[in-house]
Amino acid sequence: MRDLTSLLSPRSIAIVGATPDSRRVGGRPLSFLRRFDFPGTIYPVNPKYREIDGIRCYESVTELPETADMAIICVPVNGVIETVRECQAVGILAMTIYTSGFSEMGGDGASLEKELKALAESKGSLICGPNCQGVANFNDRMVANFSSTLGRDEISAGPIGFVSQSGLFTGIVAAECYRRGLGIGYLNSTGNEAVVDYADMIAYMARDPRINVVAGYMEGVRDGNKLRAALRVAQDHNKPVIILKVGRNVKSAQAAASHTGSIAGSYEVYKAAFRQWGVIEANDITELFDLIELFSLAPDFSKGPRVGILTNSGGIGVFCADKANDLGLQLANFSPGTKAKILEKLPAFGSAQNPVDFTLQALNDAEAIGWHIEQVVKDPNVDAVLAFFGVQMLNIDALCIELVKANKLNNKPVVVGWMLGDPSMPTRLRAEGVPCFQDPSRALQALRALVKAEEKNSEDIRSSDVNGANTFIKRMAESGVRQLGESRAKQALDLMGIRVTRGKVASDAEEAIGVADEIGYPVVLKVESQDIPHKSEAGGVRVNIEKSNEIAQIFNEICASVREFDSNAKIKGVGVYEMIEDAIELIVGVKRDPVFGPIVLLGSGGIMVEMLKDTVIRVAPVSHSDAVGMIEELKIYPLLKGARGRVKSDLDAVADILTKLSNFTLSTGLIAELEINPLMLFAEGKGVCAADALISLRAAGDPFTAT
Amino acid sequence: MRDLTSLLSPRSIAIVGATPDSRRVGGRPLSFLRRFDFPGTIYPVNPKYREIDGIRCYESVTELPETADMAIICVPVNGVIETVRECQAVGILAMTIYTSGFSEMGGDGASLEKELKALAESKGSLICGPNCQGVANFNDRMVANFSSTLGRDEISAGPIGFVSQSGLFTGIVAAECYRRGLGIGYLNSTGNEAVVDYADMIAYMARDPRINVVAGYMEGVRDGNKLRAALRVAQDHNKPVIILKVGRNVKSAQAAASHTGSIAGSYEVYKAAFRQWGVIEANDITELFDLIELFSLAPDFSKGPRVGILTNSGGIGVFCADKANDLGLQLANFSPGTKAKILEKLPAFGSAQNPVDFTLQALNDAEAIGWHIEQVVKDPNVDAVLAFFGVQMLNIDALCIELVKANKLNNKPVVVGWMLGDPSMPTRLRAEGVPCFQDPSRALQALRALVKAEEKNSEDIRSSDVNGANTFIKRMAESGVRQLGESRAKQALDLMGIRVTRGKVASDAEEAIGVADEIGYPVVLKVESQDIPHKSEAGGVRVNIEKSNEIAQIFNEICASVREFDSNAKIKGVGVYEMIEDAIELIVGVKRDPVFGPIVLLGSGGIMVEMLKDTVIRVAPVSHSDAVGMIEELKIYPLLKGARGRVKSDLDAVADILTKLSNFTLSTGLIAELEINPLMLFAEGKGVCAADALISLRAAGDPFTAT
Repeated sequence: MRDLTSLLSPRSIAIVGATPDSRRVGGRPLSFLRRFDFPGTIYPVNPKYREIDGIRCYESVTELPETADMAIICVPVNGVIETVRECQAVGILAMTIYTSGFSEMGGDGASLEKELKALAESKGSLICGPNCQGVANFNDRMVANFSSTLGRDEISAGPIGFVSQSGLFTGIVAAECYRRGLGIGYLNSTGNEAVVDYADMIAYMARDPRINVVAGYMEGVRDGNKLRAALRVAQDHNKPVIILKVGRNVKSAQAAASHTGSIAGSYEVYKAAFRQWGVIEANDITELFDLIELFSLAPDFSKGPRVGILTNSGGIGVFCADKANDLGLQLANFSPGTKAKILEKLPAFGSAQNPVDFTLQALNDAEAIGWHIEQVVKDPNVDAVLAFFGVQMLNIDALCIELVKANKLNNKPVVVGWMLGDPSMPTRLRAEGVPCFQDPSRALQALRALVKAEEKNSEDIRSSDVNGANTFIKRMAESGVRQLGESRAKQALDLMGIRVTRGKVASDAEEAIGVADEIGYPVVLKVESQDIPHKSEAGGVRVNIEKSNEIAQIFNEICASVREFDSNAKIKGVGVYEMIEDAIELIVGVKRDPVFGPIVLLGSGGIMVEMLKDTVIRVAPVSHSDAVGMIEELKIYPLLKGARGRVKSDLDAVADILTKLSNFTLSTGLIAELEINPLMLFAEGKGVCAADALISLRAAGDPFTAT
Repeated sequence: MRDLTSLLSPRSIAIVGATPDSRRVGGRPLSFLRRFDFPGTIYPVNPKYREIDGIRCYESVTELPETADMAIICVPVNGVIETVRECQAVGILAMTIYTSGFSEMGGDGASLEKELKALAESKGSLICGPNCQGVANFNDRMVANFSSTLGRDEISAGPIGFVSQSGLFTGIVAAECYRRGLGIGYLNSTGNEAVVDYADMIAYMARDPRINVVAGYMEGVRDGNKLRAALRVAQDHNKPVIILKVGRNVKSAQAAASHTGSIAGSYEVYKAAFRQWGVIEANDITELFDLIELFSLAPDFSKGPRVGILTNSGGIGVFCADKANDLGLQLANFSPGTKAKILEKLPAFGSAQNPVDFTLQALNDAEAIGWHIEQVVKDPNVDAVLAFFGVQMLNIDALCIELVKANKLNNKPVVVGWMLGDPSMPTRLRAEGVPCFQDPSRALQALRALVKAEEKNSEDIRSSDVNGANTFIKRMAESGVRQLGESRAKQALDLMGIRVTRGKVASDAEEAIGVADEIGYPVVLKVESQDIPHKSEAGGVRVNIEKSNEIAQIFNEICASVREFDSNAKIKGVGVYEMIEDAIELIVGVKRDPVFGPIVLLGSGGIMVEMLKDTVIRVAPVSHSDAVGMIEELKIYPLLKGARGRVKSDLDAVADILTKLSNFTLSTGLIAELEINPLMLFAEGKGVCAADALISLRAAGDPFTAT
């Protein structure tokens, strides 16, 4: 992780390409730095001017009286490399490059960016951009972001750290936080990320004690491991990270041969990673700001699902109860004492149940309202409180006092729903630390995110002995094998201590009969050929063979069918295996994602996987709690856990195999893809058994860098 | 349906209980009627005053110089009945009763409401309320709704008809429509609905040519059939109906013995009815207003799923593309001509693909923006257009002209996303008929609703011959039978022409062997007892019996097991039935809902029904297209339609049985509950077969009125 101090808290700034016209991009940094009262020194640099706006302007950075900490570069694209060289020559460590025309244009632009990156790396320069809207640190009054909203809105300093891969989005953040009355710490746009990247920004902002929430707009990252490390920094510093991820439908370029393949890559992997690494994902722009508001105002709020609701409208109360239920929150059961106390001050037609309907009392008795909310906040059965007021115009001052008081009573969140009442209320409340939302659905959605944020995975990575399998895989790779068919793949699994169906490959019918007699009936016959990844499709599988005298004919039928399916397929023989009955079919596997490296997959087998898309993924390493979470996320989980008197399945064995495959893949580094399909799952205590498996190894020139 | 003209368009109004203090409820009608310039005559009535606000006040309605068309009644609860009698005596037809203290209080209040209702019905009086916030008709400047927001906001007349079962909610509607710049037609609250109900309001508003959208807040109705009739009026007049339904988690009071039972009743039934009858359901308050805005501004918009998106931010463009996909809309493929024309006026760094990124061009070249939007609107591959602008402060006048022009080009919806730009834009656009939303997600959500609103069911009710079954059921009911066990229920199905598993009930093992030999093996043995609704639980079912010599022992084991399960159960015998193989298990049934009458259910059988809750319901009568929709909504539908080379099931036969059960239940009127579980479904052309069935008949004193 890079130390971004000279980029984000410079004491002096050179603006290379400065112009006097503050409407132009080159004119804005000077204008904004002065507008926000930058306490350091500013050096405009442009050979065309002697001075700009009363400040001396220099011909080049080489003429500056001191080494500036940071340079803003807004010269035309063909002058950027030269400018960077000059900055490096005088010892300027950090640069923010606004200029466009690099990798976003492809072709020559991409080559130019490569050159820029190499240049930066040769001297260890911190470069933000190119093609970015710049950075800002309002706590240090350093505004080097050229978003036009910063020339209009009087942004105040605050605890929100924002990083964006979209330029215009930083302007939206500035305007919306201003509208809500929320203070901003950082407002950083990363552009093409030639050097300084998204993860650097997250980690640096998370370490700043003035920041209490890190948020961002993300299109994608190049290095999943680095993102993970940055998110760990945020967790270690107890800073929530909220991300709006866009580009969710980009199809993975990696076409894949197995079911696993259709899932890894793309948004599904980001989603799994976010879940594992504690990122709170916002689903739309409004929710992003709602979450920023709640988390920035409420860094120390306790989190729990039991919500107490109070409204000035019985109807909205019912609506809120529905919504809380839809969102997976619970309507708190008030303790009898709470109800009794509420009744003391409630009109006859109100309701002391949750949701509390204090009716039109809100119009004239703020103290009674405060009393009711206080009772609900103090109830040990309540984790969070929503107080809703519709079209409330009167009694604002007194109500505001009561709401702020209730919010400070203890560390339970008290959020306000304020719909179409006095428009000054929301900013007044926020200024005192009370989150305020117009639509009560949004208030409840934000509270739900607060609860979800608590459901963190513990990183209990369990070790497993995978040395034998590693050695075996290494030998295979060295001898040029790329595809391990059923028997070899099972051998690898066996070396990890994973039970596989007994049996072996027979080269003729006679041998097959011998193997079957040894295993015991019924048996399964399956073609063994590296050219036939989907054996059933080729007519290469026959199950439930009960008698010795059926084997020879079936053996021959299989060979004939496969030859008809693909006359070029090399048939090694026909595998004879024990037949597994009374088990639930699952599918487990490993796949490699270009950003996040190995991904572990679990799914329902058989027709379920197609029909219900009942698959779950996690990024390796998969901890024990990740594995348990995967199992619980399956749609067939109720069946697995033995609902309604059914036999409970051996879920521990499933969790074990998931962590084992994760450990194995990470330690060998040679697996491109691994699939066990089906994995037969038995009742509790009886384990699992791999009935078929397939492993693909990585080629030497494999483009994936993530391990 | 009641004619509400005298209630909603009265030429003269008496206000009984009028007071001079306009802050009090009794003071508001006079104040609001004058504020909105009511063109008719107002008669304040209150023995305490000689005049109020310069208008003569009368002692009682009997003293009025003419018969007022409508009376607003806001006297204390104990004076209401007397006031209604007086109104009736002088011939006042319509009354709006604000007063509370009726059925919402239970006990004496409920009795009082019964009296009020009887009194109204005796003279055919139109009563709105009691316990309501009143009614308003802004097109006729008749404001008899006492919501305080009507004393503040200058609501303009317009095409929106709103009906609410919550008083405060009408105030929210008024304030929000005012904030958005939308005109309102009706703003009616129905309160306890002693006489005039929700359906009356919907039908009346839908018939008013000045109204183009009917919307409402609903807690529940008492008569599903009447609601259906009202919605049909709205459909006949081509008026969309948008409803926010609350109280969705209220548990049905009817506990039920079968799977069907756990589904019928409550919100699920409303949801099915809304879907069948063309109601557009809003999921939260903001969405309700978004839909009202879109449908009221765009009554004649064409509807289609292919969206063209243009933005001033590439990032938001990507976000919009994601969202459109999430919502089931399609990102339109622009025709080559469109792309070429867009490129003519696009900066080099913009994108002519969908979404179009016109970058910062929006800041200074409104005509180019207008050009781009025009190309997209004209593209035959585009059904709807979203133009998004973030933090746009400059060039507002010119942009507004271009957006309005694009919206008028043809009848494709052009909606605008306007986030944090010049705050005057949204109301300016709406005034010219252009819907405008802050968050682009919401704009897309509204467009999706427009598309969904087009997916109407055709009411192709197919007849079926159910006379034989009717006669049979009638005979059963007359002879006092309430529960029809497997054999009798199957007999009823057989009379409808539904195939049932062959076999019959044997009273001893010997007879059972004879039946089995006749049917052919394998067979199924099942206990026949009206006391054992769930035979499997009692050990009363054995399947796959392959040989004659196994029958006797299994017969005895079944009897023993059932006796152990319930020693009081009367065992009629053991049914011997053909065994059905190679079929998919479904469950179909009928259940009676207290509001909507008979409900038809379809679900996956076996473990699926429990695990996946894979059940779908519709309100009877179930049309052929309803039945097809039910099948397509099943989670196992991909399996049924024969995805990936599987055999296609006989879906026509499933649709037929659903409409048949619907017809049967409606025509006999005697069915309380009917369940076929499992219904065995064969391949296309092979039909279905009921393998078990159960019918419960209604008792004479059955409380359900819906048929």
